[in-house]
Amino acid sequence: MASATALNKYRNFSEWFDSLLVEARIVDDRFPVKGFSVYLENGAFILRKVREMLEEELNNTGHKEMVFPLVTTEELFSRESQHIKGFSPEVFVIESAGGKPLENKLIVRPTSETIMYPMFKLWVRSHADLPLMVHQSNMVYRHETKATRPLLRVREIPWNEAHTVHATAAEAEQQVRKAVDIYKKVLDRLGLAYLILKRPDFDKFAGAKYSVAFDAWNPDGRVNQVGTVHNLGKNFSKVFEIEFETADGERENPHQLCYGFGYSRVLAAIISQHGDDRGLVLPSAVAPLHVVVVPIVFKGQEETIVNYCRKIAEDLKGLRVFLDDREDKTPGEKFYYWERMGVPVRVEAGPREVAENTATVFRRDTLEKKTVSLEEVERYVVRLLAEIDKNLAEKSWRVMRQMVSDASSVEEVKKLIAERRVARLSWCGSTDCAMSLKEAAGGELRGSRFDVVETPSSACVVCQKPAVELVYYARAY
Amino acid sequence: MASATALNKYRNFSEWFDSLLVEARIVDDRFPVKGFSVYLENGAFILRKVREMLEEELNNTGHKEMVFPLVTTEELFSRESQHIKGFSPEVFVIESAGGKPLENKLIVRPTSETIMYPMFKLWVRSHADLPLMVHQSNMVYRHETKATRPLLRVREIPWNEAHTVHATAAEAEQQVRKAVDIYKKVLDRLGLAYLILKRPDFDKFAGAKYSVAFDAWNPDGRVNQVGTVHNLGKNFSKVFEIEFETADGERENPHQLCYGFGYSRVLAAIISQHGDDRGLVLPSAVAPLHVVVVPIVFKGQEETIVNYCRKIAEDLKGLRVFLDDREDKTPGEKFYYWERMGVPVRVEAGPREVAENTATVFRRDTLEKKTVSLEEVERYVVRLLAEIDKNLAEKSWRVMRQMVSDASSVEEVKKLIAERRVARLSWCGSTDCAMSLKEAAGGELRGSRFDVVETPSSACVVCQKPAVELVYYARAY
Repeated sequence: MASATALNKYRNFSEWFDSLLVEARIVDDRFPVKGFSVYLENGAFILRKVREMLEEELNNTGHKEMVFPLVTTEELFSRESQHIKGFSPEVFVIESAGGKPLENKLIVRPTSETIMYPMFKLWVRSHADLPLMVHQSNMVYRHETKATRPLLRVREIPWNEAHTVHATAAEAEQQVRKAVDIYKKVLDRLGLAYLILKRPDFDKFAGAKYSVAFDAWNPDGRVNQVGTVHNLGKNFSKVFEIEFETADGERENPHQLCYGFGYSRVLAAIISQHGDDRGLVLPSAVAPLHVVVVPIVFKGQEETIVNYCRKIAEDLKGLRVFLDDREDKTPGEKFYYWERMGVPVRVEAGPREVAENTATVFRRDTLEKKTVSLEEVERYVVRLLAEIDKNLAEKSWRVMRQMVSDASSVEEVKKLIAERRVARLSWCGSTDCAMSLKEAAGGELRGSRFDVVETPSSACVVCQKPAVELVYYARAY
Repeated sequence: MASATALNKYRNFSEWFDSLLVEARIVDDRFPVKGFSVYLENGAFILRKVREMLEEELNNTGHKEMVFPLVTTEELFSRESQHIKGFSPEVFVIESAGGKPLENKLIVRPTSETIMYPMFKLWVRSHADLPLMVHQSNMVYRHETKATRPLLRVREIPWNEAHTVHATAAEAEQQVRKAVDIYKKVLDRLGLAYLILKRPDFDKFAGAKYSVAFDAWNPDGRVNQVGTVHNLGKNFSKVFEIEFETADGERENPHQLCYGFGYSRVLAAIISQHGDDRGLVLPSAVAPLHVVVVPIVFKGQEETIVNYCRKIAEDLKGLRVFLDDREDKTPGEKFYYWERMGVPVRVEAGPREVAENTATVFRRDTLEKKTVSLEEVERYVVRLLAEIDKNLAEKSWRVMRQMVSDASSVEEVKKLIAERRVARLSWCGSTDCAMSLKEAAGGELRGSRFDVVETPSSACVVCQKPAVELVYYARAY
């Protein structure tokens, strides 16, 4: 296997990514079932931290955490016609148990609408029961037919799905904004850069009125959908017979939303956006270690130096800190190892630091070193972690902006896609134009900005008729 | 549906339990697939807290959290002959995806040995890689053929499974003790009472050398297995070809352990052991709310009293506290509601308390009230929570001790089982005697104490031959 250090994420994304996954102990992809991978300790740690961050936001904004089953019945799964059309090509089906065929086959959830909504029907009676807002972090299963790829395109998908029920269309609209804000907050804390796009109608969630999605940039120019928010209107409440009594005593179907946040795709974005030729670069919120302390031992002074470093590690114990006092590794080997693992800060101390009562602090993002006095170390490192987080975010948004470019013809779109970039273009709104662009340029029409108003600057790049939207166009995972 | 308050857990356990599950928002069992239930917000909260407590212990004792897939292949599943014999009658099998039969059927995990150990084979090379210790909280699936029952006998089982690999038999033995200690610690923090039993050979885990289990008591006398620790010896390492090089350069199969902690069964034990005729009684570690503050409003003083209570709630904000200032409910209704939900402490304040600058503190376990001065409230409540936890544990252990009684004949065993109690009896060790006892008395031979040495006091209660073990006998979930 090629070492991550020999690779560059922009030039050889796939190799860079795959070797980092193994070397930084994120994922082992050798599990003998295609599309199912094993998350190693660092991958599992980051997934957990991202999950905790999101769940905290959801719990603090009125969502109740519940746990719903893995399976649904064929009858429930088939109720919403668009939904079944969208998902049936990829559902896994349990057909037997204990060696005997099941009387009723079980559909393994590709998402949980058809599992949760029969319960919502039982729970929603009156307007006083609304809004109903629940969420669950779980795994969903989709028999992805394209080539699988760890974290990005897998058949077992760790995510959070939230589902809300509202009395009015206006409240449902408001909740779309709120959900977008929740996802934004978490992604921002991770320093990730993304586009918030309203998907074109032909690419909305199966059964939704419309879909809003977060597309994070990826070094190979293929955007990575990390989260989606769907306004379902009354499509599901009608077929699942969810009804409530209004204040006026009328019976109505409520409006619904569902939104999903892909943990493994967010993990992929953290790796891809922040990582560099040396390996991972982790934001502090998810770093398994914030600081590693490395003694630079010299013969005869081993004990003094290790004790000095132990004291530093002690001072940093409010953070996730590790004293790497392994005797069978050189400082150089330790530096290489922890840089590859993405530990944001390294503190070194050798004879010079001991003599001067200082420590040398290395920051992983810029690779800069600074010497600080011993009593300053803790305060300095805490501040530095915040500065690294800020810098990672700024850097990532800079790349995102550079990656997007305006295109005023099909040729220009094609060129940008070939250059692994994202095209912004004017579009007339017709599916035909989107399809013929796909044939010509190979990417996908991802939609128009949801969070800011952007108006088309010219005619449709395909048909030259008046454009109605300024849309983003890219290859995608 | 009968109200929980009309029921008694010892006299009508099933009705008491089922109505509490719904009323205290633990589980909704109306999901249309048998054996799969929905965990409502309080059930999900308690599951989460128990999970966090256990995971913290596991992480602090060298176990690494990883995430392994839901499925395995038929080939892997079938490798260990006893294991497949034990589990194949209850595995769910995915046979198709996207409407097409799968070339290779997928076995849904009933437990993860056959999923993890192919990876262990790749990871374990030398003695330096050992011990390997991983854990994962997940759901396992077993097509339980007996009648299902929420939390206690379900087909989708939330649990944690830990798996360890050791160089020597002695280390594996030590790890059995350590695992038992970890589970003990968590169960003790929850105030639960249990027997730690070494299961008889005919009832060990499929593929294990021997099994140790935690049987928690239940009001109906049927013990509830909440955790198990299995010493697998080399049974699995041989068939999964896990090998390591010893310090002497020899190649050996390592020794393995697996241990599982059933979250839903622990939740059942919390409800069943601590609950009373009024509803749940929750230990502080898992209570969604520690304290509810209820204003006892009198006409004309509403605002003063509610503000007074708000100040109390503020003072308690280090705890999980809720000010129940709903205007459409009487204090009596609120008392009833929160008692049923098991909130350990209630603080009340009305005109008298406001006038005297005090608060009335009610403890859920003993139903006692005490008036304390306002500035004392916080300290008093914190201390009271610890006292309630202690009292719940003592009470639970008292019941456990009373539930167990010595039996010196088959008739006595039968009588104890009929009285919903646990029999302790001398046994010769033969499977025949265990089976004939089962036929006569209807319970199960659960094994002998693992944590203390108990020697048989008489001849085998069945055959009258010399006894080799003092064992516990009970009906079981």
